[in-house]
Amino acid sequence: MAPTVEGGDAALLPEFPRGPLDAYRARASFSWKELALFTEGEDMLRFKKTIFSALENDPLFARSPGADLSLDKYRELNFLRCKRIFEYDFLSVEDMFRSPLKVPALIQCLGMYDSSLAAKYLLHTLVFGSAVYSSGSERHLTYIQKIFSMEIFGCFALTELSHGSNTKAIRTTAHYDPATKEFIIHSPDFEAAKFWVGNMGKTATHAVVFAKLHMPGDQCHGLHPFIVQIRDPKTLLPMPGVMVGDMGKKLGQNGLDNGFAMFHKVRVPRQSLLNRMGDVTPEGTYVSPFKDVRQRFGVSLGGLSSGRVSILSLAVVNLKLAIAIALRFSATRRQFGPTQEEEIAVLEYPMQQCRLLPYLAAAYALDHFSKSLFLDLVELQRGHASGDCSARQAELGREIHALASAGKPLASWTAQQGIQECREACGGHGYLAMNRLGVLRDDNDPNCTYEGDNNVLLQQTSNYLLGLRARRVQDGACFRSPLKSVDFLNAYPSILDQKFEVSSVADCLDSAVALAAYKWLVCYLLRETYQKLNQEKRSRSSDFEARNNCQVSHGRPLALAFLELTVVQRFHEHVHQPCVPPSLRAVLGRLSALYALWSLSRHAALLYRAERRRSCPGRRDRSS
Amino acid sequence: MAPTVEGGDAALLPEFPRGPLDAYRARASFSWKELALFTEGEDMLRFKKTIFSALENDPLFARSPGADLSLDKYRELNFLRCKRIFEYDFLSVEDMFRSPLKVPALIQCLGMYDSSLAAKYLLHTLVFGSAVYSSGSERHLTYIQKIFSMEIFGCFALTELSHGSNTKAIRTTAHYDPATKEFIIHSPDFEAAKFWVGNMGKTATHAVVFAKLHMPGDQCHGLHPFIVQIRDPKTLLPMPGVMVGDMGKKLGQNGLDNGFAMFHKVRVPRQSLLNRMGDVTPEGTYVSPFKDVRQRFGVSLGGLSSGRVSILSLAVVNLKLAIAIALRFSATRRQFGPTQEEEIAVLEYPMQQCRLLPYLAAAYALDHFSKSLFLDLVELQRGHASGDCSARQAELGREIHALASAGKPLASWTAQQGIQECREACGGHGYLAMNRLGVLRDDNDPNCTYEGDNNVLLQQTSNYLLGLRARRVQDGACFRSPLKSVDFLNAYPSILDQKFEVSSVADCLDSAVALAAYKWLVCYLLRETYQKLNQEKRSRSSDFEARNNCQVSHGRPLALAFLELTVVQRFHEHVHQPCVPPSLRAVLGRLSALYALWSLSRHAALLYRAERRRSCPGRRDRSS
Repeated sequence: MAPTVEGGDAALLPEFPRGPLDAYRARASFSWKELALFTEGEDMLRFKKTIFSALENDPLFARSPGADLSLDKYRELNFLRCKRIFEYDFLSVEDMFRSPLKVPALIQCLGMYDSSLAAKYLLHTLVFGSAVYSSGSERHLTYIQKIFSMEIFGCFALTELSHGSNTKAIRTTAHYDPATKEFIIHSPDFEAAKFWVGNMGKTATHAVVFAKLHMPGDQCHGLHPFIVQIRDPKTLLPMPGVMVGDMGKKLGQNGLDNGFAMFHKVRVPRQSLLNRMGDVTPEGTYVSPFKDVRQRFGVSLGGLSSGRVSILSLAVVNLKLAIAIALRFSATRRQFGPTQEEEIAVLEYPMQQCRLLPYLAAAYALDHFSKSLFLDLVELQRGHASGDCSARQAELGREIHALASAGKPLASWTAQQGIQECREACGGHGYLAMNRLGVLRDDNDPNCTYEGDNNVLLQQTSNYLLGLRARRVQDGACFRSPLKSVDFLNAYPSILDQKFEVSSVADCLDSAVALAAYKWLVCYLLRETYQKLNQEKRSRSSDFEARNNCQVSHGRPLALAFLELTVVQRFHEHVHQPCVPPSLRAVLGRLSALYALWSLSRHAALLYRAERRRSCPGRRDRSS
Repeated sequence: MAPTVEGGDAALLPEFPRGPLDAYRARASFSWKELALFTEGEDMLRFKKTIFSALENDPLFARSPGADLSLDKYRELNFLRCKRIFEYDFLSVEDMFRSPLKVPALIQCLGMYDSSLAAKYLLHTLVFGSAVYSSGSERHLTYIQKIFSMEIFGCFALTELSHGSNTKAIRTTAHYDPATKEFIIHSPDFEAAKFWVGNMGKTATHAVVFAKLHMPGDQCHGLHPFIVQIRDPKTLLPMPGVMVGDMGKKLGQNGLDNGFAMFHKVRVPRQSLLNRMGDVTPEGTYVSPFKDVRQRFGVSLGGLSSGRVSILSLAVVNLKLAIAIALRFSATRRQFGPTQEEEIAVLEYPMQQCRLLPYLAAAYALDHFSKSLFLDLVELQRGHASGDCSARQAELGREIHALASAGKPLASWTAQQGIQECREACGGHGYLAMNRLGVLRDDNDPNCTYEGDNNVLLQQTSNYLLGLRARRVQDGACFRSPLKSVDFLNAYPSILDQKFEVSSVADCLDSAVALAAYKWLVCYLLRETYQKLNQEKRSRSSDFEARNNCQVSHGRPLALAFLELTVVQRFHEHVHQPCVPPSLRAVLGRLSALYALWSLSRHAALLYRAERRRSCPGRRDRSS
């Protein structure tokens, strides 16, 4: 049963203050309170309100929008605020397990306040803390308690100056010295400096440092994580042998201190190795539960999926904020009109509606996707924690990896383009710093890059789909995945035979129509990409080249269309559940149809071209 | 005869310093010096070098990229730098008349150094100064000399808090008091405050203020410009009755002090009226050489075309800078490779090439367009200055207005999207402030908004084309314009009958192919838009609504396609001139083809749809 307004608390959803938006609000065809309750649930609304009230009433969080804050001051404030968030202790560990969605909800609330704060908190707890917890063992539990009391402050040091995306080329070394039972952490040169590490610039005392583990005789066991103290917690002065510093001003998120570090033969005890995937015994032998380096590597980077899911949800936050600002402005800003005397709100212009409303729909669809994917991730992590080694668990990991690897690009780009559209749609006023659209754009921008460059990540998703197709062709395997996102592909011959027939515009105003077209599109793109890849492989020397030559015109649109289909599918199902309150069905159905049709329309050229090929199968575009 | 390298001076185009780009540079199929000479000409290269050398050697222009400068300090520095530019006196009035392209070249050089400096200089000289010169009369010449000596510093105050695009709704008043022979400048309320005025925030001593001129008996003669002193040049304190201030931090261009002003019954002498389009005689009678308010209004805002052309050229500067940064980075950054040992430059990836190279081509095509449009504008202004009242002069004004009104949107959006792509293509390093991509993006952003919001401006261009079409249909008038940008439309029935036939990819690698497709597209869009507009007019109550309902899907793509065609046409002709050095023909031809095909490809869905309608003329898309 859906929550109802009556079940709510007037204090939980108070009326908006009276103002120039009243006229538009009065014209709404639905109750916004009912929609908020349906979207969030009462418990979550209460949780978010607790957080926002605390921040509103705490002078440490007071600020002037658009203030000219120096870099140092901003970084200092952000650290103090992060510390205060720990003191508030909004989310107990029990609460986290009982209602896991509160984890991203807390991060989102912080992100609504300031991306730099969300990032700083997230990097310390969910990135540094999770890495210690999931890559370490009992001997590292002592760190966990210190993380939550902020006795130590952490960062995650993987990227180097010369290598980000290509993690296998990371060059920091950790040589084991059996005489002292220590590892010697070393940066061979400037290009191997750890780089871009969030929290490292000013405040981190400890880092999870990824380095290549070498045993005596120079046997290399590949990348392993080590916990390394980089600063004295009392003075924040660097530890001996560590050269650490702040990277300076960035395009945004300037409250976050990104840093670099070089290690000059820094000795750390044997126990600093986070030893879940490989360990060195007190006797000086390397042991690992994994058979080969590749498998070990896969596990050590497994945590990246959760980073991508977090980024996805923060991108959605940025889009939500921007679209609310732009729509409210558009409803009150009047410019031109049917006569010189009568001006109308700019929101009345079809142009303004076309620019903004699809992003409103996108915010709803992506918000739902982000929550649902987070719950999938929780399932995966619970499996890991309980030691599930089943084939299903492995498949779930691969599926979530594929969804997160395209979900982060889709959400971060949608937010980036949406915020820019909102900025422009607010005209000159949108360019004033106090109106926040610039900060949102600049703070959202790195979401397109970190935890994997968007374009590079999309290749992960297209590779996943191509792998399934290859198994189908070679072994006759079914398309089947734990979350069922690829199961429709089994019907691809009949899907590709379908023709799209509608008799009126009204027939299209249901996301089921766009959904059917999307399924067709993904089947078509998968077939074409697979053919193109094989053709390239036959005519080229290497797989590497073949894949690169397929990505622009095939792999990339395939990955994006597949993810858009998944987002549309999940939102369509969500708004067509029986539990949706009848009074919300119309508006939710419209949001779902708008997002689906708008997304699909960006593939219009592909759809036309495909239809043309079908109607003249002998004739291919000359360019192909 | 084209200039040759031999004709140049080794000091003018010195070799690049040796470094990691050498390998790529050595592989070039042409001489970059020859290309620079062809693109700019020796005289212009020398002029630009003079400017850059002066700035390089002057400590006032020293700066640290990505430095954390306070708002006040940055604004102060920018003012001092602007003053120094006047002291350098790079461009004499004679030089300006002899080689008018040096005017935008100077602005572009300043823009290459810092957009805020270019804007500050431009606003004082070409916007404030030109307004005084072209809207005033002999009695205002005394101001001109003070402008160039910077004894006074100016701004152009048209926009108000509540009205920007809709200039007719501007509400500041100027009541004439015959008793004292003064005008009383007054802001009736907060919403009528002058707003966003560049230079007004901290430094302007004088403003050209647009206000509605009222004569006794409250007869209103519409908007007129007045020169009003707003600050004491010695103390920079506001004049009595003037409330003036800085608008605070913006998304970019923070060296420029945008400001607001409210006037409380500020009295200015009768002679403050810039009286070219209307005057009040000493006896207290309003006189004007123009018959009606509309015509007067058109003349008073005529200067906006030149603003748009300047913005266009500054957007091109931003794009040039960003693409050079991104391409150089891509040629040196190595990531992944065919084997684990061998990494390749990211520029080798087809994905990176597809992301960046079209923007390189766009920079060349738009740079040429910007120069050629500036020369057209010079012709128009010379006609104005010589009192040319011919029909051709009026037509030239309309054509340039149409080209500038779509040219500014095309260039500013191309730069905006290009800079964002460059930022992302440089990965994390692109997010570091010192690498300048963020500043370029933030500084370019307002180009999409000021001097007319891009989307609003495009309507000017589509209206121009629709007006020509209406004259053709109603009076049988030929499509003919002084710059011939619309003349091809006379052949529209035969153009629309053309079919696109190529037999190989190689056949497409000439911009002539895309040019033919563009002509077809513009003819098609013009016909469809005209039909849609008439259909809307028949079914709707007002022209206002009809136009609004056509803009999104018809008027906007029409205006953009028309402008892209013009850019492609001019660049195509430019690179196919007989004077192009043979050694440059291949590379210039490729740039021209790449820009044309890339631009055209964004209309692919439209082209497919149009073809489909042609092959089944009875069948229209159900949605239309």
